Amino acid sequence: MTSSAVDLTRAFATFDDHWRPRIAAQLNGQDVRLVKVQGLFPWHSHDDAEEMFLVWKGWFRVEFRDRIVTLEPGQFVVVPRGVEHRTGADEEAEVLIFEPSGVMNTGDAPVSEYTAPGGVHL
Amino acid sequence: MTSSAVDLTRAFATFDDHWRPRIAAQLNGQDVRLVKVQGLFPWHSHDDAEEMFLVWKGWFRVEFRDRIVTLEPGQFVVVPRGVEHRTGADEEAEVLIFEPSGVMNTGDAPVSEYTAPGGVHL
Repeated sequence: MTSSAVDLTRAFATFDDHWRPRIAAQLNGQDVRLVKVQGLFPWHSHDDAEEMFLVWKGWFRVEFRDRIVTLEPGQFVVVPRGVEHRTGADEEAEVLIFEPSGVMNTGDAPVSEYTAPGGVHL
Repeated sequence: MTSSAVDLTRAFATFDDHWRPRIAAQLNGQDVRLVKVQGLFPWHSHDDAEEMFLVWKGWFRVEFRDRIVTLEPGQFVVVPRGVEHRTGADEEAEVLIFEPSGVMNTGDAPVSEYTAPGGVHL
């Protein structure tokens, strides 16, 4: 059994809501998640996971307590475990996230409207 | 300490050789590798690792024994563990690979000119 190809443009076109990641693939205990974002996400950290954000479309910010990383399509950053961060985008952006399966999107922040149900596949 | 942003276009511009992956990031025991490819790679499999190929530039084939998956920029496929595959590109292509750190590019195939030194960072 072999897996099928995924087209990012088509995959992003299948959903519209913001801050609700879809699992596009799983491998080696990791998820490849696709998320549309707009606005500002709560501060949080993940004690047990590093997170990679790769921008596919639009402009996307990863804010740390001491600096802001602004990313455009084809740029990525890795957030180390335990490091507080929040993400944001003034206009809608499309972002690929690479992180361990089971990681909650809001990390150690209180559950809120931003907390997405886990395990949702494309 | 927070990590720096990586720009894929600039990162790919820093090397020219084919079939020699560079590690662009490491997280959760996984590598994000960048590789330029042209020609046809040997058949092989990885018993202990799944591999994801995401095309950044050009056209790229992932061939299985029973079918060929042709990918263009923004398309990816995951090769399940233990499944024989070979990759190829008629013209130079740029590809992102997600796989566990330490995976040898030629897998279970005999060591050859295609076997890349491991652990080479950008």
